[in-house]
Amino acid sequence: MTISKLRQDAIDIFNAGLRAADPKEAVKRHMQRNGHTLMVNEKRYDLRQFDNIYVVGGGKAGASMGMAVEEIFGDLITEGFVTVKYGYRAKLKKIRIHESDHPVPDEAGRRGAEEIVKLAGSAKENDLLLCLISGGGSALLPLPVQGISLSEKQEVTKKLLACGASINEINAVRKHISKIKGGQLARFSYPATLITLILSDVIGNYLDVIASGPTVPDSSTFGDVKEILKRYKIWNEIPDTVKFCVEKGIRGEMPETPKAGEEVFSKSQNVVVGSNIQAVLATETKAREFGYHTMVLSSFIEGETKDVARVHAAIAKEILHSENPVSPPACIISGGETTVTIRGKGKGGRNQEFCLAAAIDIAGLNSVAILSGGTDGTDGPTDAAGALCDGKTVERAKEKKMNIQSYLSDNNSYAFFKNLDDLLITGPTNTNVMDLRLVLVGT
Amino acid sequence: MTISKLRQDAIDIFNAGLRAADPKEAVKRHMQRNGHTLMVNEKRYDLRQFDNIYVVGGGKAGASMGMAVEEIFGDLITEGFVTVKYGYRAKLKKIRIHESDHPVPDEAGRRGAEEIVKLAGSAKENDLLLCLISGGGSALLPLPVQGISLSEKQEVTKKLLACGASINEINAVRKHISKIKGGQLARFSYPATLITLILSDVIGNYLDVIASGPTVPDSSTFGDVKEILKRYKIWNEIPDTVKFCVEKGIRGEMPETPKAGEEVFSKSQNVVVGSNIQAVLATETKAREFGYHTMVLSSFIEGETKDVARVHAAIAKEILHSENPVSPPACIISGGETTVTIRGKGKGGRNQEFCLAAAIDIAGLNSVAILSGGTDGTDGPTDAAGALCDGKTVERAKEKKMNIQSYLSDNNSYAFFKNLDDLLITGPTNTNVMDLRLVLVGT
Repeated sequence: MTISKLRQDAIDIFNAGLRAADPKEAVKRHMQRNGHTLMVNEKRYDLRQFDNIYVVGGGKAGASMGMAVEEIFGDLITEGFVTVKYGYRAKLKKIRIHESDHPVPDEAGRRGAEEIVKLAGSAKENDLLLCLISGGGSALLPLPVQGISLSEKQEVTKKLLACGASINEINAVRKHISKIKGGQLARFSYPATLITLILSDVIGNYLDVIASGPTVPDSSTFGDVKEILKRYKIWNEIPDTVKFCVEKGIRGEMPETPKAGEEVFSKSQNVVVGSNIQAVLATETKAREFGYHTMVLSSFIEGETKDVARVHAAIAKEILHSENPVSPPACIISGGETTVTIRGKGKGGRNQEFCLAAAIDIAGLNSVAILSGGTDGTDGPTDAAGALCDGKTVERAKEKKMNIQSYLSDNNSYAFFKNLDDLLITGPTNTNVMDLRLVLVGT
Repeated sequence: MTISKLRQDAIDIFNAGLRAADPKEAVKRHMQRNGHTLMVNEKRYDLRQFDNIYVVGGGKAGASMGMAVEEIFGDLITEGFVTVKYGYRAKLKKIRIHESDHPVPDEAGRRGAEEIVKLAGSAKENDLLLCLISGGGSALLPLPVQGISLSEKQEVTKKLLACGASINEINAVRKHISKIKGGQLARFSYPATLITLILSDVIGNYLDVIASGPTVPDSSTFGDVKEILKRYKIWNEIPDTVKFCVEKGIRGEMPETPKAGEEVFSKSQNVVVGSNIQAVLATETKAREFGYHTMVLSSFIEGETKDVARVHAAIAKEILHSENPVSPPACIISGGETTVTIRGKGKGGRNQEFCLAAAIDIAGLNSVAILSGGTDGTDGPTDAAGALCDGKTVERAKEKKMNIQSYLSDNNSYAFFKNLDDLLITGPTNTNVMDLRLVLVGT
């Protein structure tokens, strides 16, 4: 098996994972309509009870999810407004698709969030509000509380991203300086009926974490927020307005996010329609079709990217050494989402950095190829979904006078793989179920 | 299956790994004597050609390896001198067992190394020198070049350990400020016949890396050494005498370590008698006996401990979530050796830190237990081989008012597990084939 065959297989296997993550299919798996009857998982709704059906939402998969909802409800929809990432649009009939920026929120995102709050607020007791939530929703729907500017909120987000805070921690902070996140959208829509369809981009599918859970009870508190900002030693670096808000919240002078059991959640159903594991298992099926011995490592993978990469490389080495855990041709698959603690000034994303770090450890192993890609089609602030590397990557880099270790120290994975023409480019995929990583070991 | 059953199984499985790593058995698997004939792997020696048989060596397994050699050669041995870690001694007949310190070398180690060089140098053309090498040998046999004091050499080692340098990098530096490492012992013994028996504590069993390869051609150069010290930004912090030595070496005013093909290696055989994978596979056999579905992840595991731990925890989560990669009861096994970048002031070792980090991620999972232990019986500068953790560790720590995150940030794993009575204590094991990690998931 040549390296180029392994690489082509990796791309085909990744694409099979992407197809399984299609949000339209995911929605339809969990929501079916038969005339006046709507089934959402095991729960039955009589659509005749509703005067209006509104649709709101945010996330990278918003357009595809909206499309599914329009196909299910057709003209029953009164009005809709869903925010997606720039480029992730589609033309819908009733639902307006609005674009804003990710991962750093922008003014368009704020305006969109205001529209959504307005629409949710206009829903009456006999109305149905459908909320379409997917990964990226947190950044795409920024609505800071009074007194905090969007740029101040952005500053906090940037600082948290840069110091390697987890998505959970970042979201706890965002919820408490937001008017919409952490269950607060449910406050606006209540007493309308609320059904939230969720495409998960979070390890463990924690509903309160995905897109910062705008319709889900929040368990974090203003106290937690202060602890996080102190732990990462950025409490003294954040804007005074944010500190002021957090301190006010701790003193009880700002409303806490709504907690489990509160009345605002009494007419609300949250449904996870898709997540990383479906995509992972679809890659496994495809790899088996191609004749690989497969092993699904985990869809819960998290941790510092470069060290997670080393574990994956170690598995490739063992396959070559003792045919454990499976014999070649082998395809090891993992999902989840890692983090990058930024130490350099380069440009890249966790998937590209994964390949950069892995390439060092598999240097010289001529029957190993590795792919890491984000199912959303964008890896960090780049136009790539991820990258490919193999046992010859380091050698090819040397020929181009690139020191791979320096690129890694500088978190400069994008330039490295662009120069080698090894970026994985998919364009916007209109979905987001975290990452897929493939380690292929040939015979 | 209760957690206490999982924990007891983990200990029993670990002990099966330790037994498989017994250096005495390892030596005898690769070296057999029948009268005047000695077989070392495929190579035959006529013992009548030798006037004397000398034994030298260093490493944590030195006493057990020496015992095997005495059993094979009996009175044919003229004299022997082997350095082990304090407490790793045994009473031998012909071979003197000398003790010194590890991981930071001491004066006793230096005196021992001088004895070894003297004994090797006394071997003549018709003599046989047996060299017994095992993990820890590098620190146990310190012999700095003229002009560099032991404390200066220690200072460099400490700095390298603290900044998270790999064992390969640390050894490259050590070789070039040493008189014995990096093949230089072969220079002393030549033209005697030299047989080196090696118990590997290095990922990939690289002969030039294990104990800094005193009898093995070295591929690193003075230039590499400077690059490493610069990359970790400690070039300006190390003693002038060391910088002076490195610069002299680069200018060719100091002898380079001997390279492959040089005559000093023409009568030398190097044999790996045991390594991590045998211990890993023995744990797998025992786990299967206990009824677990097993998966050997890799014996090549390296990288930052806490992030490697997160990957192991992620696998436990997936087993509970989707029964991938194997269904419960499951035992996931890995070997190799991770590193810890020290940021805190606490006391601990990589195996204890592994359990500390893993405990955070498996908190609340009541059918998961994890063990990580060094086969040498000592983990970092502690009297423990490692630790055990499980889904209740975080809860139990809370009851004792211990914040696990703070202990992790402070690299203070020893105090944490001592307080919970969860240290893994074996005492000196007289072997060293890196670490064993076990993730057990019950039904």
